[in-house]
Amino acid sequence: MTSDSTISTNPLVDTFTYRVDPFDADFKGQLSWDVLGKRILSAASLHADKRGFNSIVKDGTAYLWVLSRMVVEVNRWPRVGEQYSISTWVKTSYRFFSERCFALTDAQGHQVGQVLTIWAMINSLTRQPELLDHLFEHSISQYAAGPLTNTVERSRRLRANSTTPLMERPTYYSDIDTNGHVNSIRYIEYLLDAFPLSHYVSHQVSRLEMDYVAESYQGDTLKLYLDPPAADHPEGVAEMRKANANDEETVCCRCAVRFAPRHET
Amino acid sequence: MTSDSTISTNPLVDTFTYRVDPFDADFKGQLSWDVLGKRILSAASLHADKRGFNSIVKDGTAYLWVLSRMVVEVNRWPRVGEQYSISTWVKTSYRFFSERCFALTDAQGHQVGQVLTIWAMINSLTRQPELLDHLFEHSISQYAAGPLTNTVERSRRLRANSTTPLMERPTYYSDIDTNGHVNSIRYIEYLLDAFPLSHYVSHQVSRLEMDYVAESYQGDTLKLYLDPPAADHPEGVAEMRKANANDEETVCCRCAVRFAPRHET
Repeated sequence: MTSDSTISTNPLVDTFTYRVDPFDADFKGQLSWDVLGKRILSAASLHADKRGFNSIVKDGTAYLWVLSRMVVEVNRWPRVGEQYSISTWVKTSYRFFSERCFALTDAQGHQVGQVLTIWAMINSLTRQPELLDHLFEHSISQYAAGPLTNTVERSRRLRANSTTPLMERPTYYSDIDTNGHVNSIRYIEYLLDAFPLSHYVSHQVSRLEMDYVAESYQGDTLKLYLDPPAADHPEGVAEMRKANANDEETVCCRCAVRFAPRHET
Repeated sequence: MTSDSTISTNPLVDTFTYRVDPFDADFKGQLSWDVLGKRILSAASLHADKRGFNSIVKDGTAYLWVLSRMVVEVNRWPRVGEQYSISTWVKTSYRFFSERCFALTDAQGHQVGQVLTIWAMINSLTRQPELLDHLFEHSISQYAAGPLTNTVERSRRLRANSTTPLMERPTYYSDIDTNGHVNSIRYIEYLLDAFPLSHYVSHQVSRLEMDYVAESYQGDTLKLYLDPPAADHPEGVAEMRKANANDEETVCCRCAVRFAPRHET
């Protein structure tokens, strides 16, 4: 049995506290995906930095973490003016992957959301993943705290059947982060923008799953293929692909999104 | 003669301190426009909220501030991990307009940027501006602190000559803020995205001026007309227009952007 105290007193866990500023919100005044998503990534980065495993150099080559999978579940979205905290810890590591958990907590200490992420460490030149035990000489497990309060399960399979792109979106300067590729959170914005504003008057995201397959870069055009939610499958499932000059498409990410009625306060 | 102490000790000034988190930055690790812009708007909102003049209800009708003009000058962009502060105060008010200043200060207390904004208060139903002295019964001047350290001058005229749109961009859920319109900072992102990533390898924005003329809404397509910087005019000048179903265009904003060589640290 786990509780919030498991998180707050655990030296393997770091917690970052923020407030929803007036323009950190969507049009209904709820914390925006852009801000939440980037703070999740920041928390991961700061937690790993503090312990010295955010990036490493081995045999003269730099290695860095790339996000492979992200599952976000939110029961209640913080609103403008509210304080919230993001706690993060490493759950486990195995072969090429490290799993990292997050808890989203409101000002009263209630967990209102949880996140599971899976990361690989890639060679900065070849962009290929490397065995973590090789890179860290079997020392990476010292950071593993287990699941603690986190109960997120990843889906077995995310695949859209649609063969006609719903939207195409070029990529620009503002999409690119310090890793030199389109920021992971931009794909989420792109997915959510496939639904009209009117949908968000009555609905909010309750679960989102992103499977990052290939990087995209400024100049790529992203195409979104969407199977919208329907009676027999409550999740919308999407694929984003980039096209090259020969119009050959490469999958950049697969996504699933589930909506719930929007809570008004 | 003004100095930083004019700001820090003035009860009419509020200061908000932040740190550039890992994903608050552009691809070169400098504070992103998106984050800076939204924090400028937030600072204005929080400063006015604290003093009770952020929105008012008069004769049963709600009135709210809309941004009419924004001029941003930045000498040195804070980098990932750096602390920075945004100070804000009302400079003056006259007829329909209130001018608000901002100072951007680094962790050592040096002013690295300054901002001048001009706001009107509109009737939330008719979207028409109202005389401030009428709304506030001549009490608005009590908040006016004068220019203090702020030396920003607005341009007399911003007009692009281009007759061919360089880019078209639909508007989506993620573009809309709690005012129900495309967020003011999105137009800045859109303008800066008209320049390729390679431009930002060697350049950074040193001055940006936005003249907000008409609101746009989710579903509008924005067209960008740009006169790029050239030898005889160092500023890029742009216009963004929305088109209706009859393809009649309405100017949403006019912009000017000036670049300087990017400072590396």
